[in-house]
Amino acid sequence: MTITAPAGFRASGVTAGLKVSGKPDVALVVNTGPRRVAAAVLTSNRVQAAPVVWTRQAVADGAARAVVLNSGGANACTGPEGFADTHRTAEHTAAALGAAGVGGADGVGAGDVLVCSTGLIGVRLPMDRLLPGVDAAVGALADDGGDAAAHAIMTTDTVAKQTLVQEAGWSVGGMAKGAGMLAPGLATMLCVLTTDADVDAATADAALRAATAATFERVDSDGCMSTNDTVILLASGASGRTPTPDELAGAVTTACADLARQLVADAEGASHDIAITVRNASTQDAALAVARVVARSNLFKAAIFGNDPNWGRVLSAVGTVPPQVAPFDALALDVAVNGVQVCRAGGVGEPRELVDLAAAREVTVEVDLHAGDAEVTLWTNDLTHDYVHENSAYSS
Amino acid sequence: MTITAPAGFRASGVTAGLKVSGKPDVALVVNTGPRRVAAAVLTSNRVQAAPVVWTRQAVADGAARAVVLNSGGANACTGPEGFADTHRTAEHTAAALGAAGVGGADGVGAGDVLVCSTGLIGVRLPMDRLLPGVDAAVGALADDGGDAAAHAIMTTDTVAKQTLVQEAGWSVGGMAKGAGMLAPGLATMLCVLTTDADVDAATADAALRAATAATFERVDSDGCMSTNDTVILLASGASGRTPTPDELAGAVTTACADLARQLVADAEGASHDIAITVRNASTQDAALAVARVVARSNLFKAAIFGNDPNWGRVLSAVGTVPPQVAPFDALALDVAVNGVQVCRAGGVGEPRELVDLAAAREVTVEVDLHAGDAEVTLWTNDLTHDYVHENSAYSS
Repeated sequence: MTITAPAGFRASGVTAGLKVSGKPDVALVVNTGPRRVAAAVLTSNRVQAAPVVWTRQAVADGAARAVVLNSGGANACTGPEGFADTHRTAEHTAAALGAAGVGGADGVGAGDVLVCSTGLIGVRLPMDRLLPGVDAAVGALADDGGDAAAHAIMTTDTVAKQTLVQEAGWSVGGMAKGAGMLAPGLATMLCVLTTDADVDAATADAALRAATAATFERVDSDGCMSTNDTVILLASGASGRTPTPDELAGAVTTACADLARQLVADAEGASHDIAITVRNASTQDAALAVARVVARSNLFKAAIFGNDPNWGRVLSAVGTVPPQVAPFDALALDVAVNGVQVCRAGGVGEPRELVDLAAAREVTVEVDLHAGDAEVTLWTNDLTHDYVHENSAYSS
Repeated sequence: MTITAPAGFRASGVTAGLKVSGKPDVALVVNTGPRRVAAAVLTSNRVQAAPVVWTRQAVADGAARAVVLNSGGANACTGPEGFADTHRTAEHTAAALGAAGVGGADGVGAGDVLVCSTGLIGVRLPMDRLLPGVDAAVGALADDGGDAAAHAIMTTDTVAKQTLVQEAGWSVGGMAKGAGMLAPGLATMLCVLTTDADVDAATADAALRAATAATFERVDSDGCMSTNDTVILLASGASGRTPTPDELAGAVTTACADLARQLVADAEGASHDIAITVRNASTQDAALAVARVVARSNLFKAAIFGNDPNWGRVLSAVGTVPPQVAPFDALALDVAVNGVQVCRAGGVGEPRELVDLAAAREVTVEVDLHAGDAEVTLWTNDLTHDYVHENSAYSS
């Protein structure tokens, strides 16, 4: 169930002292080959953290040997000094890997090291702790180090998120962190996926983009987009198997879907996971736009927290989508909550008392636009006292 | 300070029993002329309550004799039956006014009566209580009935919102209700403005549209848009004064600005009123788009509740605006909170400890895009435990 389950990977997680809690905060993932294929999907936020800028450049050649990740500081909005810190982290990691003989015969350059950071924005990283932490992480690298790495990237996560998709002779492993700021482009998070499939960089990139579009981009916990979102796929080729592009995309999508569902289940302060399905839209984009306004309605989300199937708040949100984005007749809209059609043809349907929201954490909301045949499911969470508490009681 | 301060208006507020609380729930405003000019700005939500559909038709001729308003039920998503209820309410009001001799020599038709409703969506109005309530409201009409009317339209409002703008020989009065769902197009609310200025329908309509765009459309408390938003301006001509179009627009804007500020100050559960000013944008629309994403960031709003000047959450929100909507260089952004420039050139500025958010309810956030000279100020509120409580503990 870890990123070291696929062949050709070693990993570690150590405590460098970046977090005041004293919990592990530096993770390292190394691709020991024979291939060093890499792809990444990065935040679309225009305010980008230094490690995002670095990783975009470093992965442009479709290759990487390692990913070094830290929690305890996002290194975002830290100016040229912050970028220099990221550069130095990559250089230091490359040198330490080389000195430890992990890099392989051809050595490791800074450009072979991808960097991810997560934590508070606008604060420099304490490099005097981070760099010794990198040394410790190199020393701790292990064939079964995936679990330690997954724990070291946690921030407000209450559980580590890991996955493994086993195919015939090859597999995809994954780890992710993320518990707040879960929104599109991407769900706010760091994620490293590993596979021992023998694939080229273009195939890995296409598979990763298809997978994220169908999974992490369908999670919108609180509508907020991070400056640090990064999803990385490393392919070692160690299995000697070469799946078709569709097979690879399928396995990576399954892995990402599993991790995305784990992120929703651990969203900060949430008491309900809500699957919003929009059916019979004119296009996928139309369906997604409708789903997203519902997912971002604080009134709707607070109602679900109160176990109130308040379909009026669904309709009032749906009605804000411009007709050119999603054509529909407001007098044709149907809404079902947990399978009970509480709204029919834009008006009152089954009695809302038939809906039992208290019974389970998972809630389904289905909106039928009667305007086509496209369908999208978007995951979100309810708006709770604990969400407000967690996001107001301390800076993060 | 009420809608009956301008000459030519009578009003009332009575208890019809629509609210379980037993508080006043039916209001009536009558324009006794000599003019019966009317203009309305209505929600842009595609899901529109029956009274909104009715009022749009009834005001199309630029004239109205009366406005009947009820709290205790929105009459939204109630199908053809709900529209029939609104129609019947207008007919009944017209007949009752005629029977009471209030309508003037030329009588009152249903098309002279505008209707507004507010309350829970998806529930039919109890017409057997509402219509007797209308009769009582007609009987209670008084030259100083504005205050009673303002109280009868309250829902979760903790105070009645009223205003009066006194000009040379004429004036503009106003009342509004709204405490949640405060969002653009319009801030969710009902509002009736009265003036004794002698103006034509086109001038009244232009003044009202200019005023709402600059005031209610600049309030975004919780990002949620209602199905019932209605702002109505009635002009009696009773002062015999005819201001210029600019003078009328100015006075109406002043009245709306006062009411908008009162709405923000009474937003459900809020502990802070936040003025987000975006400066030096390429256009007004660009400035507004940037202000709106900040106003809708739950992470930012929760931070303000926690008295935390978390400018990283401002920047991560600003960065989600597409470049074609608002061009700016992310590395040029400045952010000041309560006058302290905590972010300079996209990086760390003054120490956040210098910002004291606990001292006052009002908070200022200034974002400088360095991309032009357009400026917009948008008002919002913080995200609090009380907001979650009020919007989850009962259906509304």
